[in-house]
Amino acid sequence: MNKKRRPTLQDVADQVGVTKMTVSRYLKNPTRVAQSTQEKIAIALETLGYIPNRAPEILAQSTSRAIGVLVPSLTNQVFAEVLRGIENVAGQSGYQTMLAHYGYQAEVEEERVASLLSYNIDGLLLSESYHTPRTVRMIETAGIPVIEMMDSVSPAIQQCVGFDNTAAAYEMVQAMIAQGHRHIAYLGARMDVRTQLKMQGYELAMAEAKLTPLAMTTNDASSFSLGALLLQQTLAKYPYVDSFFCTNDDLAAGVIFECQRQGIKVPEQIGVAGFHGHDIGQSMTPKLASIITPRNDIGRIAATELLDRLNGKEIEQSVIELGYRIDLGETL
Amino acid sequence: MNKKRRPTLQDVADQVGVTKMTVSRYLKNPTRVAQSTQEKIAIALETLGYIPNRAPEILAQSTSRAIGVLVPSLTNQVFAEVLRGIENVAGQSGYQTMLAHYGYQAEVEEERVASLLSYNIDGLLLSESYHTPRTVRMIETAGIPVIEMMDSVSPAIQQCVGFDNTAAAYEMVQAMIAQGHRHIAYLGARMDVRTQLKMQGYELAMAEAKLTPLAMTTNDASSFSLGALLLQQTLAKYPYVDSFFCTNDDLAAGVIFECQRQGIKVPEQIGVAGFHGHDIGQSMTPKLASIITPRNDIGRIAATELLDRLNGKEIEQSVIELGYRIDLGETL
Repeated sequence: MNKKRRPTLQDVADQVGVTKMTVSRYLKNPTRVAQSTQEKIAIALETLGYIPNRAPEILAQSTSRAIGVLVPSLTNQVFAEVLRGIENVAGQSGYQTMLAHYGYQAEVEEERVASLLSYNIDGLLLSESYHTPRTVRMIETAGIPVIEMMDSVSPAIQQCVGFDNTAAAYEMVQAMIAQGHRHIAYLGARMDVRTQLKMQGYELAMAEAKLTPLAMTTNDASSFSLGALLLQQTLAKYPYVDSFFCTNDDLAAGVIFECQRQGIKVPEQIGVAGFHGHDIGQSMTPKLASIITPRNDIGRIAATELLDRLNGKEIEQSVIELGYRIDLGETL
Repeated sequence: MNKKRRPTLQDVADQVGVTKMTVSRYLKNPTRVAQSTQEKIAIALETLGYIPNRAPEILAQSTSRAIGVLVPSLTNQVFAEVLRGIENVAGQSGYQTMLAHYGYQAEVEEERVASLLSYNIDGLLLSESYHTPRTVRMIETAGIPVIEMMDSVSPAIQQCVGFDNTAAAYEMVQAMIAQGHRHIAYLGARMDVRTQLKMQGYELAMAEAKLTPLAMTTNDASSFSLGALLLQQTLAKYPYVDSFFCTNDDLAAGVIFECQRQGIKVPEQIGVAGFHGHDIGQSMTPKLASIITPRNDIGRIAATELLDRLNGKEIEQSVIELGYRIDLGETL
């Protein structure tokens, strides 16, 4: 199937009987041409199926009006909400997003960054703070604004928007200890950088309270069913475990479902806490203890900052810390 | 922030001491140049932070090696799985995806299609079978392959990949009636075309069994919490309802959570069925009755067909029906 010759500005102008310049003015702002002409141009654009063309701008490398967005996973609800925040801002400003995912692998991220940059994207939003040297070099060479999302602590290439994953985990585990839990297991999946940062917070809080950390982790992708499986594995190995701090709400909900299946009472026999404060945990019974994180705001503010910088604004804050909130729910 | 002058093929060639043609050959396939040269070129590419440039190809309108993907929502897990299917195929074939969402609104879809086409995308994957006339006209003008996903019944512009939403709903409601349910309420959210198609299947099955349809619908976005709310509203209005057929698993899980809160036994007092067979329903207790749909396959096959057509293959089947499977779970 071959792309057709698209109607040009000249085709539209010819049909209306005006100059190309008039059509161009109309496209920038319809009210800049006479009202009777506005209608005629609108009809001609529709009849001809006119499509604007960005290629000349892209070739001149001035602007593509597209921003690249990289997320580790498209099925992880955390990033769906970050994306929604980004898309709302970008869409309203007439920017298109080019989205790719890299399955939590820095080498795949490198390939995706190369591909996105080859379209002369104007800016780049990353969900990771760890990159290969070539990724960092390409971003430097491109000379475009880049913002790293999710993590406000790891060093950023230019600017980051997120929260302190380690501090959040530390604070939740402290709260669990304050409630009397002693044998707290940490359930982790994927073992990406953020899962490791959370594990550090967990270990820190356990060490301070002179408690033995019990981590049960896997490189598998997170899911409700995985939470159920990790619960079974943990109880088989450490039958005295009294609570679970899970790297996300999916695992935590899976733990609760499995407790319900096994007749284990939550929170009387087993306490459970998750991470991110998703709707699932907030609406289930008992309501899941979790760390409420600002996913939508991370996307929204990262996109806003990126567009501000594309409009010439300098970076005011290289670290934008959006915080989190501990919610003890009914499962601790 | 200004984009920098990027290193050219000539810059790389100069650093290695070879011709531009050699570097170009290497980029297409490293094994086409001598092994010692391969290493030198790799080092030069890395040191200079070389980024390939697609703009000349895009300007010639021959190919952008990008496909546009439109989904109604980024937070709806259904489309996250469709996207994963698409991305896996597109990424492996060296195609970039340009993703946008349109909030279930045909007018927003029109804007997004115009924007995507302005980048001279090579092909387009849509998640809707209803479009504005201008959307259809622009797609015709562009002369690119387009595939509509999710629905295998509504007429397609060129080709569609999906399943029969009405038949699936009809079959599930028939199964509920066969189990003895009589006062089956349909819970719908968003009221997009697919939700309406499912409602038709529900109404058909109810009419055939001479039962009175009881629909409780809203234009709000679907969520677990909305499922809980719709259950409350339905029971207030129709206290004799004995079961719920929900337009998706999120609403269905929300109904079950609310039943647990209110001490209503599922399935003894209230039967519940969802749609799509997500992990949440499959791992909760009791296991949710649902219609298992091939989301990942829809994305994978749609992307494969699109790339085949970009490689010159003709359409063999204009309707690709992927079917579904009824799973009665433990909630009916």
